[in-house]
Amino acid sequence: MKKLTILGSTGSVGTQTLDVVANEPDAYEVHGLAAGGNIGLLIEQAKRFHPRVVCVAEKSLVDDIKPHLPGGTKVLFGEQGLIEIAATTEADTVVTAIVGSRGLSATLAAIEAGKNIGLANKETLVTAGHLVMKQAAHKGVSILPIDSEHSAIFQCLNGENRKDVKRITLTASGGSFRDRTRDELQGVTVAEALNHPNWSMGAKITIDSATMANKGLEVIEAHWLFGLQYDEIDVIIHPESIIHSYVEFVDNSIVAQLGLPDMRVPIQYALTYPGRRPTPTESLNLARLGSLNFREMDFARYPCLRFAYESGKAGRSAPTVFNAANETAVARFLEGAITFLDIERIIEEVLGKHGITDLPDVAAIAEVDAWARKEAAMI
Amino acid sequence: MKKLTILGSTGSVGTQTLDVVANEPDAYEVHGLAAGGNIGLLIEQAKRFHPRVVCVAEKSLVDDIKPHLPGGTKVLFGEQGLIEIAATTEADTVVTAIVGSRGLSATLAAIEAGKNIGLANKETLVTAGHLVMKQAAHKGVSILPIDSEHSAIFQCLNGENRKDVKRITLTASGGSFRDRTRDELQGVTVAEALNHPNWSMGAKITIDSATMANKGLEVIEAHWLFGLQYDEIDVIIHPESIIHSYVEFVDNSIVAQLGLPDMRVPIQYALTYPGRRPTPTESLNLARLGSLNFREMDFARYPCLRFAYESGKAGRSAPTVFNAANETAVARFLEGAITFLDIERIIEEVLGKHGITDLPDVAAIAEVDAWARKEAAMI
Repeated sequence: MKKLTILGSTGSVGTQTLDVVANEPDAYEVHGLAAGGNIGLLIEQAKRFHPRVVCVAEKSLVDDIKPHLPGGTKVLFGEQGLIEIAATTEADTVVTAIVGSRGLSATLAAIEAGKNIGLANKETLVTAGHLVMKQAAHKGVSILPIDSEHSAIFQCLNGENRKDVKRITLTASGGSFRDRTRDELQGVTVAEALNHPNWSMGAKITIDSATMANKGLEVIEAHWLFGLQYDEIDVIIHPESIIHSYVEFVDNSIVAQLGLPDMRVPIQYALTYPGRRPTPTESLNLARLGSLNFREMDFARYPCLRFAYESGKAGRSAPTVFNAANETAVARFLEGAITFLDIERIIEEVLGKHGITDLPDVAAIAEVDAWARKEAAMI
Repeated sequence: MKKLTILGSTGSVGTQTLDVVANEPDAYEVHGLAAGGNIGLLIEQAKRFHPRVVCVAEKSLVDDIKPHLPGGTKVLFGEQGLIEIAATTEADTVVTAIVGSRGLSATLAAIEAGKNIGLANKETLVTAGHLVMKQAAHKGVSILPIDSEHSAIFQCLNGENRKDVKRITLTASGGSFRDRTRDELQGVTVAEALNHPNWSMGAKITIDSATMANKGLEVIEAHWLFGLQYDEIDVIIHPESIIHSYVEFVDNSIVAQLGLPDMRVPIQYALTYPGRRPTPTESLNLARLGSLNFREMDFARYPCLRFAYESGKAGRSAPTVFNAANETAVARFLEGAITFLDIERIIEEVLGKHGITDLPDVAAIAEVDAWARKEAAMI
């Protein structure tokens, strides 16, 4: 019996995590559900999965939700509520599926409380990889990746010695604009950018996929998760998103993880690891598919990926600035305030203005993060 | 320090095993080398690798070879010599790289002597899987596959639970005639058949690759090696031979092993398992390759594969008959005595005539094997 708390239960990964639970209800107990503003869905989830505790974004939502919850459900709210639900339920595993850098304090609190982390919030490692991995090692808890790419690498490393790894390669679909030149990116709409060819995901990550900032965040995340240097992490374009990523070993043998794009597979793997259980997903038939295609990553076409590598190599506060500037720019693009190509311009300008510093704690991260957001909002 | 004896040292897998040894001479000690009639090469190998013992095919070759060997090298000969070199050297691992069913007694003797087996002789498991796997389990020795396909499956199963395996898929290049229809197979020459598009291998296995009998033998071998039922073993055509085979787990996650076709990678893996060491092979670049292609196996186009599955499912003596009839037919084709399409006709006829029996020991196997060869020689 796996005991779960899900941070971000009404988002894309959150709802799919609950799909996994619903598929084998006897294998899981849901102890906590934290959502943002989607109160209707949170109430539905609470009725179905009977968590002991739920958490909403703001105090004002508490009274709206309370009458609709099963009797005895505790309701928390805000940043402090998120930290409390992450750390204090009886869950053995906390799935961190909140988008953006808000998930960090709650994730650290869960690790401090000895809970394994099903990590879907990639900004956690991007901004605080040095704190999170150190604390996880200290507490002896596992950071189990939920992203399809990192789950793939994690699966390919099963039973292998890390010292035998030569390099890993993350595959990138190329996103919604992969067949457009840079010139053709002028004036693309939000709706076009949100139309991802392979994966059904949240809005922010879909834009990040089109700019390749998402792959950049994954590269930085992989650096922390797998203890690899940046020159040991490659990215390749693979339009079909069938090979989810792969590991090359020192003997030139490559082990890859494949499947139809369906987040429920990596989500469930993080919950059943090291075992596996059937999923209600479709089996991949390579013959029916016919072919898998690959092309070199083009760093001129996707400057956001270049910025991510540069930030990652620079280290310290640089990845936090990259992430915060990107998050702000994407939000502005989604609001219609800036163009698609402004996103990369903003990130580059903010990174250019930043003087890299150490980030000894969450407060220092928050300070740099706030500075980068402010700068990115003004450009 | 790995201590090796190589049965079939002058063949394709044997010479490549010695390439692996030569690449890291401090990691290996060669204790025994057994060859057939290629005395010149065996002498060269003995001078370079200093085995304590060598074995040649016939007594008449002993005096030819002796004067050319380093002082003190013991020389054995024949079937009995092969058994002795397999079982009595100080080797911890015996690489069985002899083509055909001659390798069986020697392999069983090596297992009996507690030696791990680097298995490149696939007929061993096809004819005597029930004896070999039982004896290996009893003696606690490992059967480490050297075939690229089985090595791939073996690598993909690293760190996984066998009960979580849903099915495995062996990839087949389609062989030298993969782009010909059945009509276009009429009158093909031996030279055409030996022109394999991807792999450099011995003559017999190259013909088996063109008829798909090779893949059939691999299916039966996989049944024994990995404890799978025949409906859990699939075959797919993959012309590039880049994905060497893959495992699908119960959660629909697939783990595949990839690389440029180079036998030195699976050979070395069998010697360094569970670790890995650098190989003098080329690294795979999927972007440079561009695409990987797949198509359904066509059992009407490749009846030998169908015969293999049918023999495997029938079990007992049927796979031995399949293998012996095939071996005889291929030898006759290579001699120019029959046509390419006669190979499948002969196998089918011999299988049709055979009354399936139990095979309790090597003598029973030899008897059925001899019967099938005799039948296959007469058709």
